[in-house]
Amino acid sequence: MKILVVGAAGMVGRKLVARLPELAPESVDLVDVVSSDGVRALDLTAPGAAREAVASRPDLIYHLAAVVSGEAEADFEKGYRVNLDGTRALFEAIREAAYRPRVVFTSSIAVFGAPFPPKIGDEFLNAPLTSYGTQKAICELLLNDYTRRGFFDGLGLRLPTICVRPGKPNLAASGFFSNILREPLAGKEAVLPVDASVRHWFASPRAAAGFLLHAARLDFARLGPRRNLTLPGLSATVGEQIEALRRVAGEKAVRLIRREPDPKIQAIVAGWPRDFDPRRALELGFRAETSFDDIVRAHVEDELGGRLP
Amino acid sequence: MKILVVGAAGMVGRKLVARLPELAPESVDLVDVVSSDGVRALDLTAPGAAREAVASRPDLIYHLAAVVSGEAEADFEKGYRVNLDGTRALFEAIREAAYRPRVVFTSSIAVFGAPFPPKIGDEFLNAPLTSYGTQKAICELLLNDYTRRGFFDGLGLRLPTICVRPGKPNLAASGFFSNILREPLAGKEAVLPVDASVRHWFASPRAAAGFLLHAARLDFARLGPRRNLTLPGLSATVGEQIEALRRVAGEKAVRLIRREPDPKIQAIVAGWPRDFDPRRALELGFRAETSFDDIVRAHVEDELGGRLP
Repeated sequence: MKILVVGAAGMVGRKLVARLPELAPESVDLVDVVSSDGVRALDLTAPGAAREAVASRPDLIYHLAAVVSGEAEADFEKGYRVNLDGTRALFEAIREAAYRPRVVFTSSIAVFGAPFPPKIGDEFLNAPLTSYGTQKAICELLLNDYTRRGFFDGLGLRLPTICVRPGKPNLAASGFFSNILREPLAGKEAVLPVDASVRHWFASPRAAAGFLLHAARLDFARLGPRRNLTLPGLSATVGEQIEALRRVAGEKAVRLIRREPDPKIQAIVAGWPRDFDPRRALELGFRAETSFDDIVRAHVEDELGGRLP
Repeated sequence: MKILVVGAAGMVGRKLVARLPELAPESVDLVDVVSSDGVRALDLTAPGAAREAVASRPDLIYHLAAVVSGEAEADFEKGYRVNLDGTRALFEAIREAAYRPRVVFTSSIAVFGAPFPPKIGDEFLNAPLTSYGTQKAICELLLNDYTRRGFFDGLGLRLPTICVRPGKPNLAASGFFSNILREPLAGKEAVLPVDASVRHWFASPRAAAGFLLHAARLDFARLGPRRNLTLPGLSATVGEQIEALRRVAGEKAVRLIRREPDPKIQAIVAGWPRDFDPRRALELGFRAETSFDDIVRAHVEDELGGRLP
């Protein structure tokens, strides 16, 4: 099996690439908008780039590349150019190449917008409240139609919010969900801008890589015509996150969380999904963590070499 | 109020245009892909055409233009070019013009695909099973996002299947729903390819024009962030259609329907919606026929000058 990963240098991309040997691929081609170790530069929005990306006719294409939510909101044109036109260019290039690879696309729970039922089911409408969510929802529709027409065999995966995100704190509105764990686990302070009662939907980076590997092994004949899945995750409150931190790393870590209510972030987060009933993905064998302790421990093991501060 | 109608020469367009005087417009600009009486030629997919269309800064833009379902399925590239790229070009031209008109877009119940609940509610997912339905669903998402970003004030209207469609019988899979009424009402034979138990969702051309006029008068502040509505219609079986024909035009008309089961058409129709619970549109004052006799009578009055064969 020849594998192409588009967006290989991103956080989820790197987690996936590290585990690709589990699929025993014949070859691996890693591309991203900027080159890095083992990853060559390829901008899907450049003329001819998508065609070049699939010229070797990879059997499995992971399309993970995207401008993130905050940037797509701040720069309307760039968001549509990269997240919609870039994806469409890739899909068109595959159609023109006239073979039928498997395409695994990372979508997001941002395709959903409030108001929500208590648990969002597999038949709930996509009414996104961000341009990023709109672009992902459009690409899901394209993926479904290109699959139905036989141009490729697609699967869209709506990732939960990834937590604990490794790396530095970022300015995304969702950043605090990871910051309040990652920073105290490294002995540093973190700011909590919302109330402890705020509930959201999570999976670890390790689970995200697991979803993508599972998608490579899955029997697609089981999917039927609806090719976009809400993945399993863990519904947890900020308070439950903090209790998990306390159990894994003690009171000393929890004391590093500084409460600084931010009405702007509170308003944004109020429109986000809180809980799902991802029945189809569970039936298809996708699995995420079932306790926040596991999510915290995955970070300690995978990012901190098992060491606590 | 200055009004622009894109797709003014189509069936729904002509019904709307005939009633635009009810809105007492300051000016009316009618365009379609080919010119006809009072309608100038303008192809939204041609470079600069969309910009030219909105150069006069119309206050209300009706966007009705589309390649129909059968053609979008037969010609993949044309369907996407006209139904998606054409619509996006119009939306982009409005964004560039930097004013905030009202945009009323005709979508379709083709945004829904089987399996369905017994009645499709306002929160049911869009999982289209045609390229046409995919293109409409994508345009709905764009309309919603452009509205949320303040580029225009949009409303997408998912029309029921229009019945009785005036004109000649066409080869669309849905054609028989109109053929079995229109042809007998004109003293001609019609073919029924499906069972009398087949159920579908209908509104008259008169109701369609009524929806579009209502959208011009509606207080958009009542809409909230979800700008695409499933419109009211009448859920009826083919048997109920035939009974209405019998009541309005007698046994003689019914005898002109020839049953010729067609497994291909039966298979297509089996994937179509049968019934809806369009609560939001009803609350917003949209109204369709509530009996099939009214739909048949609307055709006799509007197309046949009140005369029966």
